[in-house]
Amino acid sequence: MTSSVRDIQGVFDCVADDLGRVDERVIRAGSVDYPLVASLLGDIVAARGKRLRPLLLILANRAFCPSMDRVVPAAAGVELLHIASLIHDDSIDHAALRRGQPTLNSSLSSGAVILVGDYLFAQSAILAAETEIPRIVSIFASTLGDICDGQLREMFDAHRLDQTRDEYQRRIYGKTASLFAGAAEMGAYLGEADDDGLGRLRAFGMHIGLAYQIIDDVLDFRASEDVLGKPAGNDLREGVVTLPTMIFAEALSPGASDRQALEDVIAGNENDAAAIDRLVTRIRASGALDEASDEAERHVARAKAEIMPLHRRDVAGMLSDYADFVLSRSS
Amino acid sequence: MTSSVRDIQGVFDCVADDLGRVDERVIRAGSVDYPLVASLLGDIVAARGKRLRPLLLILANRAFCPSMDRVVPAAAGVELLHIASLIHDDSIDHAALRRGQPTLNSSLSSGAVILVGDYLFAQSAILAAETEIPRIVSIFASTLGDICDGQLREMFDAHRLDQTRDEYQRRIYGKTASLFAGAAEMGAYLGEADDDGLGRLRAFGMHIGLAYQIIDDVLDFRASEDVLGKPAGNDLREGVVTLPTMIFAEALSPGASDRQALEDVIAGNENDAAAIDRLVTRIRASGALDEASDEAERHVARAKAEIMPLHRRDVAGMLSDYADFVLSRSS
Repeated sequence: MTSSVRDIQGVFDCVADDLGRVDERVIRAGSVDYPLVASLLGDIVAARGKRLRPLLLILANRAFCPSMDRVVPAAAGVELLHIASLIHDDSIDHAALRRGQPTLNSSLSSGAVILVGDYLFAQSAILAAETEIPRIVSIFASTLGDICDGQLREMFDAHRLDQTRDEYQRRIYGKTASLFAGAAEMGAYLGEADDDGLGRLRAFGMHIGLAYQIIDDVLDFRASEDVLGKPAGNDLREGVVTLPTMIFAEALSPGASDRQALEDVIAGNENDAAAIDRLVTRIRASGALDEASDEAERHVARAKAEIMPLHRRDVAGMLSDYADFVLSRSS
Repeated sequence: MTSSVRDIQGVFDCVADDLGRVDERVIRAGSVDYPLVASLLGDIVAARGKRLRPLLLILANRAFCPSMDRVVPAAAGVELLHIASLIHDDSIDHAALRRGQPTLNSSLSSGAVILVGDYLFAQSAILAAETEIPRIVSIFASTLGDICDGQLREMFDAHRLDQTRDEYQRRIYGKTASLFAGAAEMGAYLGEADDDGLGRLRAFGMHIGLAYQIIDDVLDFRASEDVLGKPAGNDLREGVVTLPTMIFAEALSPGASDRQALEDVIAGNENDAAAIDRLVTRIRASGALDEASDEAERHVARAKAEIMPLHRRDVAGMLSDYADFVLSRSS
């Protein structure tokens, strides 16, 4: 066990009761009348990984005045929003597996998968509304908007190599970081943080989320198929240009043969598995993955800087462990 | 022009300014950065029919203390929720046309259509949150849940002839009536109605919505292809059992040849167009459509009874015209 995994386990242990209550609400909101869907959803909810987003909301709340009664529905809403968005994501990608587990696509028609996702969006909105706090609902709704915006950008930016890092950052902010930022802001708001505290926690969440997605994009090149549940280089195959690819492309001279190979793959004109594997190997060997990881590390450092002034040093320590864990994850 | 169309035009004229502000918010919320999607969405929003749901919200509000500042975002949110749900509906049905107009499915990938629907759900939630009134958000969220529940029921109840009228009513309540009920309740709540007023307006909306869907289900058998944009008997073809089919089936003796034909079509074992047309003709000739229309009429009568005690007789008159219009619509 690496030290960051050990540390995050300590953080989980510390909030285990609260997370248990959140989980129970998530499971209840995901239970439906249709036996087939209920059993599939139950599996998905139960198999859900690390519950990082509710954990962040709870920690952000504890950094100020803990208020668990309203934190539980808000955190459950955040987790359900995440699950709903993964379900639509898998449906859009026609993915049969996520983290090696079957997705709903394997058992339900595409129409049913869309509806189940919509149903969970509704349940997450019901949980947010249960807090009866307009600001929480408003953060929640705008976060959902940001997630959709990021996903639409990813789709419409695909197959184009001429993208700036700003475009990439905007996209991953929407797709991933907005929910971390929103979760942290909700937790802080429910803890009655002042404007400075709200801003700091939101920024913490945002940088953590950006780091999280960059690591994800690095792992897409680095990890082996049995860890990802899909072949390495999946983003390339889909024509999605991520930070490692950008860094790799920036270092190529205009006439380099790698450039033509990359352009062909991104444009979708080259689908040969061996050609894509060669490109993955070239990107791995180029140092682009390390450079991208450095960028994630810088985001984590900026996240940690935001929480330096928190009075609750114990909670700041847990947030710092949380940040290290996001950076260290390998799956 | 029939008298009910003339009357509803008078109602529209009376709230034209308010509806104009709602429309402007709907269009603004539906405008996105991606030129292709923006133009498609613009067409869909502009081509949108009668704006019956925002109209109901505005009228319900005027029955008490009009409060236009908060009514506009709430009504725009209701209309966007409706549009988003139609987009997912069309995507699930792979429909190329709605009311004779091309759907998003004709121009975008199925994944993009899911995301555009999600994006509009998010925008509708943002509008509801803008009212900053927890109860409005809560009605909004639970309505979204009811809609998804109704659509899931329709999907999982399909291809089964052994359905009760209660099951049918629960399904169309979710799918259609919940949004009319929610719109009317939101309008009344924003008008500071007391509990009696809230209950009456909600019941009014619910009965109107049930009548609306029953009429829809009758029109599916009655109307010709150029009005519906799809062949008559489409529900039968999809294995969806609606009120006219239930009434027709109830009157058949167990051994009747029509029963076997119906069971085969509903189960999806008979896809021959001529056989389905014959069944549509039999159902048309059976009197089941008139009986179903009578049921819609009873719902409209119950809706009107709910608004009898309203002090604002002018608004009650407009709500009554609204009810007549829903009953009289032929497309």
